[in-house]
Amino acid sequence: MKWHEPHLPEGQDIEAAALRISPYIHRTPVLTSLFFNEMFEASLYFKCENFQKVGAFKSRGACNAVFSLPHEELIKGVSTHSSGNHAQALARAAKLAGTKAFIVMPINSSKVKVEAVKGYGGQIRFCEPTLEARESTLKEVIAETGAVEIHPYNNYHIICGQATAAREIFEEIDNLDVIMAPVGGGGLLSGTALGTHYFSPKTKVIAAEPETADDAYRSFKGKEFYPSLNPNTMADGLRTSLGTLTFPIILEHVNDIITCSEQGIVDAMRLVWERMKIIIEPSSAVPLAALMEHKTDIKGKRVAIIFSGGNAELDTLPWNQ
Amino acid sequence: MKWHEPHLPEGQDIEAAALRISPYIHRTPVLTSLFFNEMFEASLYFKCENFQKVGAFKSRGACNAVFSLPHEELIKGVSTHSSGNHAQALARAAKLAGTKAFIVMPINSSKVKVEAVKGYGGQIRFCEPTLEARESTLKEVIAETGAVEIHPYNNYHIICGQATAAREIFEEIDNLDVIMAPVGGGGLLSGTALGTHYFSPKTKVIAAEPETADDAYRSFKGKEFYPSLNPNTMADGLRTSLGTLTFPIILEHVNDIITCSEQGIVDAMRLVWERMKIIIEPSSAVPLAALMEHKTDIKGKRVAIIFSGGNAELDTLPWNQ
Repeated sequence: MKWHEPHLPEGQDIEAAALRISPYIHRTPVLTSLFFNEMFEASLYFKCENFQKVGAFKSRGACNAVFSLPHEELIKGVSTHSSGNHAQALARAAKLAGTKAFIVMPINSSKVKVEAVKGYGGQIRFCEPTLEARESTLKEVIAETGAVEIHPYNNYHIICGQATAAREIFEEIDNLDVIMAPVGGGGLLSGTALGTHYFSPKTKVIAAEPETADDAYRSFKGKEFYPSLNPNTMADGLRTSLGTLTFPIILEHVNDIITCSEQGIVDAMRLVWERMKIIIEPSSAVPLAALMEHKTDIKGKRVAIIFSGGNAELDTLPWNQ
Repeated sequence: MKWHEPHLPEGQDIEAAALRISPYIHRTPVLTSLFFNEMFEASLYFKCENFQKVGAFKSRGACNAVFSLPHEELIKGVSTHSSGNHAQALARAAKLAGTKAFIVMPINSSKVKVEAVKGYGGQIRFCEPTLEARESTLKEVIAETGAVEIHPYNNYHIICGQATAAREIFEEIDNLDVIMAPVGGGGLLSGTALGTHYFSPKTKVIAAEPETADDAYRSFKGKEFYPSLNPNTMADGLRTSLGTLTFPIILEHVNDIITCSEQGIVDAMRLVWERMKIIIEPSSAVPLAALMEHKTDIKGKRVAIIFSGGNAELDTLPWNQ
């Protein structure tokens, strides 16, 4: 098997990914907060992927996927459908690698995100805002251009790239009892779970999900795939369903999934802004919200939480709705 | 002269202050931003006092002033009138030193700030929201309690404490061409100017002030004290007049004062939130706003900017007004 052929990431693949993407991403800081430590009587460590390039962990996976392509594939360009952070991250990675990115975006995508993709030189094809239209338009684009599809999470190179965040945490913080990440499609969570399995196997992996988009929770508890139906959460990064590659990893390597209310997301997000003076987006606040709603006991424990991104909408803050 | 007798801070006083307050304050990070570097074609270094204890540089001066008091003074307690960050910083410093803080606050102070002062054990006396009432009430409190007045900026120990921020910058970043701070009463600015004079004398000190509260600008240019009359700026930390101790230091050691519009403050603050994913309050955005309005040319230069605080009002964002 060649190194660039997709396969379930092993420890050495994650090490290689960390090296591969290191020129293109930030090693983000791990912050602590006396306020939250006192609130939980625990030691919390926040991995700030909100400070990552394009404002989200997505840059890790996108860079790893693009820079893992063999030359004959890379020159064809890359393609995806996305209305969110993956679109920007992929367009940026393609630009850095000197190739093209063809991004299918629904016509109701926010202007800011469209401009950001254009700013990285991404070529946008708009479509109707349905999953069907997104997938069929992507097929057309790929048929026309020969570009390589880079799925936002159901791709082993993406998962392997996302795993580098957990690896950095374990390099910096010893003896963690728990590591937490939010779960949407499961790219960050499956990467985090694999990274923990290889680099800190005694640490428990606990995911968090909004109650109103609890497909991963139900799939995990039922050990059977349930899709995300009418997800109605402000955590817009967490509305997607698990993938065929992410779900098995999660079933095997995640210890628990807990949920939180929408009001809990608002409260946790606001507390982070007020007390830590950093901007996180709603999806980032979900693990903390679940802890604040006492869905698991962390008293006396050492707990890392991944703040997944910082691309919050500044015109409509959730506590002013 | 005894070390605790107030005098114009010398280099060794600033060194001593840094050591004195080090157990009680954060050594805040210096952040960089590719976005702003490209905008100005310069190298910018942001000293993040928004991450400081109580969310502002005020903790430095308050801790230095309180911990510089001789025991017989300290046990009487400390007192000030303040509706802002100094009230919290002084209450916290007093608590850490095991003494009392008597804080005169106008009755229209925000509930959040009143609760914060109480949270640090500060004893609050409310008064009418006029400078006259604040000063007369403070006199009453001091007459009753014997507490030592700690003025928010017109106090050499306060100025000396604020100077430690510049000292940390120069320890970390070499060969700075310019250092910038906002100016209100001049505590941070005079401290920054002295710190620069002692620790990096080739670096130019440039202050920034809102156009609508430009008393320091006028006083500096006219070399004569002008009070702040009807200051009408959203930068609530910058509405005060210079003091009899801060003005002479500023006249001697500051190279220039530039101003910015209110819209410039909004734009700069929002860009920092969006691009750096950190929360700064309006006063912090003033130097960057003045640069964005091209009030001085920094192309090719190495420029440090002090973000003075992060206590932004999250319910009413200035770009939503």
